[in-house]
Amino acid sequence: MIYLDHAAATPVSKKVFEAMKPYFSDEFFNPSAAYLPSKKVASEYEAAKGVIAHAIGAKASDIVITAGATEANNLAFGAALFGDCLYLATEHDSVRKVADRHHSKEIAVDKNGRLILDDLKAKMTDNVGLISIALVNNELGTIQPLSEVAAYIREVRADRLARGILQPLYLHSDASQALNLLNVSVARLGVDLMTLNSSKIYGPKGVGALYVSHDIKLSPMFVGGGQERGLRSGTENVPGVVGFAKAVEEATAHLNGNRKKYAKFKQILLDELKDYKLINKKHSLDNFLVLCFDGVDAERLIFLLEDKGVYVSTGAACAANKGTKSHVLAAIGLSDSEINGSLRLTLGETNTEEQIHEAAKLINEAVSVEKGRHV
Amino acid sequence: MIYLDHAAATPVSKKVFEAMKPYFSDEFFNPSAAYLPSKKVASEYEAAKGVIAHAIGAKASDIVITAGATEANNLAFGAALFGDCLYLATEHDSVRKVADRHHSKEIAVDKNGRLILDDLKAKMTDNVGLISIALVNNELGTIQPLSEVAAYIREVRADRLARGILQPLYLHSDASQALNLLNVSVARLGVDLMTLNSSKIYGPKGVGALYVSHDIKLSPMFVGGGQERGLRSGTENVPGVVGFAKAVEEATAHLNGNRKKYAKFKQILLDELKDYKLINKKHSLDNFLVLCFDGVDAERLIFLLEDKGVYVSTGAACAANKGTKSHVLAAIGLSDSEINGSLRLTLGETNTEEQIHEAAKLINEAVSVEKGRHV
Repeated sequence: MIYLDHAAATPVSKKVFEAMKPYFSDEFFNPSAAYLPSKKVASEYEAAKGVIAHAIGAKASDIVITAGATEANNLAFGAALFGDCLYLATEHDSVRKVADRHHSKEIAVDKNGRLILDDLKAKMTDNVGLISIALVNNELGTIQPLSEVAAYIREVRADRLARGILQPLYLHSDASQALNLLNVSVARLGVDLMTLNSSKIYGPKGVGALYVSHDIKLSPMFVGGGQERGLRSGTENVPGVVGFAKAVEEATAHLNGNRKKYAKFKQILLDELKDYKLINKKHSLDNFLVLCFDGVDAERLIFLLEDKGVYVSTGAACAANKGTKSHVLAAIGLSDSEINGSLRLTLGETNTEEQIHEAAKLINEAVSVEKGRHV
Repeated sequence: MIYLDHAAATPVSKKVFEAMKPYFSDEFFNPSAAYLPSKKVASEYEAAKGVIAHAIGAKASDIVITAGATEANNLAFGAALFGDCLYLATEHDSVRKVADRHHSKEIAVDKNGRLILDDLKAKMTDNVGLISIALVNNELGTIQPLSEVAAYIREVRADRLARGILQPLYLHSDASQALNLLNVSVARLGVDLMTLNSSKIYGPKGVGALYVSHDIKLSPMFVGGGQERGLRSGTENVPGVVGFAKAVEEATAHLNGNRKKYAKFKQILLDELKDYKLINKKHSLDNFLVLCFDGVDAERLIFLLEDKGVYVSTGAACAANKGTKSHVLAAIGLSDSEINGSLRLTLGETNTEEQIHEAAKLINEAVSVEKGRHV
């Protein structure tokens, strides 16, 4: 198997699994109970939250554990209770759909998928309460210049203050895809809310987190026992959070090694693959390659490659499942036929250099077969 | 260790853990991706949902997977979008707090914690859209006569129909504590919405489900990739749901054995314990004992017993954590001093007969020590 879809899902790493294991059947206690074994679990849970928070330069009390990035993105929009929202045209559906519940506008991107700051500025009004921009786009790997947005937001805030306008303005970023390859600091990026995701960084599925700056008063989506400072009730998923913390620890410990490895793998693919156009040329994470094979149906390539044990995708798994055209590739200006011919390869820890050479060969063969079919 | 707090948390059973294990690192694929390994995972996920649904006489498409019972309870209240709500005075905070977001009234209970049907009838108006009554109370183990409520609801519906009143009326039940000892059928109980919980039945934490009758149009709490028929977006927690399904399978397979075992254990405790008053005398699950030790501070008993390796509680873990008085024990008419002297013992799979004798002895000793302190 050559798995090249790490942006869709990553396997739980051995270290993560070993870290989680004791918390299923031995340290299974409810962290809220009064006796010592529960208090021990509660303190280990808090320590795990501390590890996750530390990786982004925050404190355990700044993060709210959720069941994943989708929930965290939705929760973040609670900060825009009465304000309008702006979001990038290339955002994941979990941002787009919750934005639809507000008065929202899309910010345009350039052909590399980078936000157009002038478009953001043109759409800014005194009613905007939240701007949501993923740090790394999930289809292109495009890294957004969040600190430039944050600098502009500071200007807007100062201007509002001067004019006596009370509407707060916050910056949210979904950093689900970022933690494997980027050093993510909420202070440096200037974000007020940030989504993290366990299942994209070799941690377990069903766990995520929202960083919430302490000056923000969020409204919980659901209520009950008052866990997570009342922002997200429900018995804590202790093994999940312990695993998530280990995954964060591993990701941040190996950033440089990962960057080098994926840069090398990417170059091998760019050198050995044939007849493609690279879509995400600039500002992209090294483990993301979006390749357009002109006149070829990428959906058919997926099935041909599947027969050879190579797993790739055309874009976000949840969108691919519905057979709809990628809104991300449309937003960067690709034509329908270019979108139809585009494959996303996302490299990850399951890959070896040997696999990458083999994948290049098998993709070339599959493209030839498909091109031959049309001649 | 003698753990007598199975209503707070249960360890993941060996069989459940073994069932989950392959889905962390081997079968880790995103169920929404297009290639075969993902489709295999997607079909195994659906099969697991089918097992959970089957246990309550429903189909996989009737249940929505959530991150736990709290989320499921909150989601259920989406059925009462524009209606008022009635809920039992003894409901868990995850029902009480979401009910507070609606126009809601409490239904009174008798001294055994059973709902008073006449009180429910007295509070019924044409605006009521949802009634929420846990099948088994989480502090007392009281089993509610849901089918009597369902019969009354059918009368109300018929009457509304005859008078041209369009407000729908649904019955929701949190069955979190029930599946270990009761045969739960949504049709027999007459419920329209039912909450299930993995972490109370030896399944993993962070997983639950809401049964939703097909005639109900729920509003999702959060949106995104459209998973769970759009009612609960987010990448599916495959290992969690596979483990939950195995836990449900095990619980339903051993109902009779469990009932006999816990009835025997309960009788041993009732015979060997001294100087107590049994609070939950009637209509209670056999693994729940609520005992009042007059003039003794139960919080202190917990700490004394903890030193001997016996873990018990005064009630719901999330409430215990906040040091607030149990609203459940208040609702059944206990005085403050009776509430202060009440211990909840909940039996489970970690217990042996030998442990139960030992627990009786150790509890008697702890009560003597506490009584001695006051002489």
